[in-house]
Amino acid sequence: MAWINKAENKHHVVIIGGGFGGLYAGKALRDKRVQVTIIDKRNFHLFQPLLYQVATGGLSPANIAAPLRGIFSRQLNTRVILDEATGFDPDSKRVFLKDEGIVNYDSLIIATGTTHSYFGHDEWEKHAPGLKTIEDATQMKNRIMLAFEQAEKEDDPEKIKELLTFVVIGAGPTGVELSGTLAEITRDTFRRDFRHIDTSESKIFLLEGLNRILPPMHEASSTSGKKLLEKLGVSVITNSMVTDIRKNLVTYRVDNREEKIKAGNILWAAGVIASPVGKMLHDVTGCELDKGGRVIVNPDLTVGKYRDIFVIGDLAHVKDEKGEMLPGVAQPAMQGGRYAAKAILAGLTGEKIPPFKYKDIGTMATIGRNAAVCEIGIFKLSGLIAWFMWLFVHLMYILGYGNKLIIFVQWAWNYFTWARQARLITNIRDNDVNEVES
Amino acid sequence: MAWINKAENKHHVVIIGGGFGGLYAGKALRDKRVQVTIIDKRNFHLFQPLLYQVATGGLSPANIAAPLRGIFSRQLNTRVILDEATGFDPDSKRVFLKDEGIVNYDSLIIATGTTHSYFGHDEWEKHAPGLKTIEDATQMKNRIMLAFEQAEKEDDPEKIKELLTFVVIGAGPTGVELSGTLAEITRDTFRRDFRHIDTSESKIFLLEGLNRILPPMHEASSTSGKKLLEKLGVSVITNSMVTDIRKNLVTYRVDNREEKIKAGNILWAAGVIASPVGKMLHDVTGCELDKGGRVIVNPDLTVGKYRDIFVIGDLAHVKDEKGEMLPGVAQPAMQGGRYAAKAILAGLTGEKIPPFKYKDIGTMATIGRNAAVCEIGIFKLSGLIAWFMWLFVHLMYILGYGNKLIIFVQWAWNYFTWARQARLITNIRDNDVNEVES
Repeated sequence: MAWINKAENKHHVVIIGGGFGGLYAGKALRDKRVQVTIIDKRNFHLFQPLLYQVATGGLSPANIAAPLRGIFSRQLNTRVILDEATGFDPDSKRVFLKDEGIVNYDSLIIATGTTHSYFGHDEWEKHAPGLKTIEDATQMKNRIMLAFEQAEKEDDPEKIKELLTFVVIGAGPTGVELSGTLAEITRDTFRRDFRHIDTSESKIFLLEGLNRILPPMHEASSTSGKKLLEKLGVSVITNSMVTDIRKNLVTYRVDNREEKIKAGNILWAAGVIASPVGKMLHDVTGCELDKGGRVIVNPDLTVGKYRDIFVIGDLAHVKDEKGEMLPGVAQPAMQGGRYAAKAILAGLTGEKIPPFKYKDIGTMATIGRNAAVCEIGIFKLSGLIAWFMWLFVHLMYILGYGNKLIIFVQWAWNYFTWARQARLITNIRDNDVNEVES
Repeated sequence: MAWINKAENKHHVVIIGGGFGGLYAGKALRDKRVQVTIIDKRNFHLFQPLLYQVATGGLSPANIAAPLRGIFSRQLNTRVILDEATGFDPDSKRVFLKDEGIVNYDSLIIATGTTHSYFGHDEWEKHAPGLKTIEDATQMKNRIMLAFEQAEKEDDPEKIKELLTFVVIGAGPTGVELSGTLAEITRDTFRRDFRHIDTSESKIFLLEGLNRILPPMHEASSTSGKKLLEKLGVSVITNSMVTDIRKNLVTYRVDNREEKIKAGNILWAAGVIASPVGKMLHDVTGCELDKGGRVIVNPDLTVGKYRDIFVIGDLAHVKDEKGEMLPGVAQPAMQGGRYAAKAILAGLTGEKIPPFKYKDIGTMATIGRNAAVCEIGIFKLSGLIAWFMWLFVHLMYILGYGNKLIIFVQWAWNYFTWARQARLITNIRDNDVNEVES
């Protein structure tokens, strides 16, 4: 049994999760009179907004990930531990770790995020993989690339058609970006690579349960986004509720009709559910959870009566001034992380700071080559200028100058040559092989 | 049952394997009056000489791989099939594929290479992973990175020492490059990243059965290579025959003594054995195999009485003028591939070409930062100039301008910042977790 204690007589801040929330909390504690321990089950911070580019072979996993140790290498008051929280004791201020360790904290920041959810239909997962981790992205890429490879060897035109049909479920930023990229690679990149099939005949469907795509954005952006997608050849079907997913078959309801699509590739970009750490916290603190398993926090992001436990990012249910829940994207997590760090530092000197207030600095989604939709303050943009802004903002926020440089070079290369170099089929797991029978 | 036939009435060359041999054969048939089908079980060509950099987190898999379809995209007489040969019928000129396909050929080039061999001790593999595929490299990287992570959480000094001990078995180019890189990352890159352990206290052993390292090179290079490695802190032990490998324990004989090293990381870079396709070919053609399972070919690289079947690259046993077998490296495979293509084209017009003659253009191995050993013709170099030559030659030979560009930028970045960005622990398989018990 290993005990991970503070080495010095300083206030010990323990951060669980190295996503946007945990990372920005940790960075805000640099050079402060506290000792910081960051615990994550992965050894890297993942820049999730670009995960769809890994899933479609445009970037390598390492391009969008930054080793946590590298990030905090020179932040000497901070230690990184590769482990997973399995429980808490909020009264004795301890976290229990999977690898048999125990950590004592003075303040605790929990930022373990969400995972994808199939709304109670876990049996859909094997037919419609989601996109939250590097492994998910590798698996999705394997399935997409293998579909083309199988089609190239297939004689039956019906099976070829099925293998070249893609259904993306959920038209949030990930679903929009995935379907736009699929349109781009089938129409352009892969077109010259096959001799038997014509990849530009691929069908791409984007299904959305609400009445417009990109629901976190304004209606004008949804409309221009839909137009841009349709121009690329994506069939956008809104108001469609998926009712069943089986091997190569999606069933959905639209306008009270039941429709079916036979598709060799079904990709899930619809729902998320809170990490199980929310439930653990509920069990020991009695804090309330919302329907998605998120922790309903106090206005200062603390939990119940515990002023030393903060929950931030996607795991927290935080309301804005209009009473709407903040979206599960990077900005609220980053701002929450910075706020929690500030609150802890203020607490050390007995100061009080005002409640957390989210500042919305904008939303954006890219739609294939040369096109994006952006909302920044009162400005709504779409098309080429929005696309350049999207590129700029993502390069700005991705961690590490090395990643910025490599991604910039890789993007420029991909742009001018239409290439996708990272389309290797590797680390195949059982579920990666496409399910069309021969 | 799918039949993969030639679409036009042209001589059909079928190439099995997209490594250096198959690739250069395929490229030499560009714009010629033949039809080419390349069959590989992977969808990419792998630049194996840089695989050790993936295993140590310096490069991403996609950096050293080129999608076969991309390579032959504009070579319109060439088709790529993702499949695996399971048998041959040399009399009816057919290849049988795993995915139930059959291919008719007029000429056949077999270039399926080798895999690592444990000299009859297959039980060693789980304790000492080898390095032949992208998956091997990912696994090796996971084990190396996890060893440091486990040590950081460990209290017992004996276990920390064991976790920070690396044994590399086999001092060919791969073993030398692996141990040199391990020295570099433990002494420099990782030094600031941990708070509890001092990675520079890591012990790195390089074991070699022969009396010198880099046996394919001249003795002067072996001597300077050994000096460079020792300067980096690697303990080089020649004349050492490994007799047993167990969980965290290597036993070897040196000078008639038996020695043991307790090590959390045992890496295999020792032996190779021919791909099973050699045995398949033996079964149907009666061709001779050598002890390593390689096909003993005719002077024109054909097999037995079959003038339409060529075996090239690592799978072929080819002797040079002194009667010594050509080494299993890229150059003989590339030259063999070009020769086979030339022989096939000559055969179409009834011409004869002289037997295959290997032209040795040099050997090189890098040894950590700023140091390498090179032999080019009568020149033998070591140190900084050799290192620059190594960089230049590898950039020159790696396929695709995109890869050249990205690797160049990544190398420059790694060099000046001492960073290793690609050290993510992903796609963990059961065997990846280090075996030290807590």
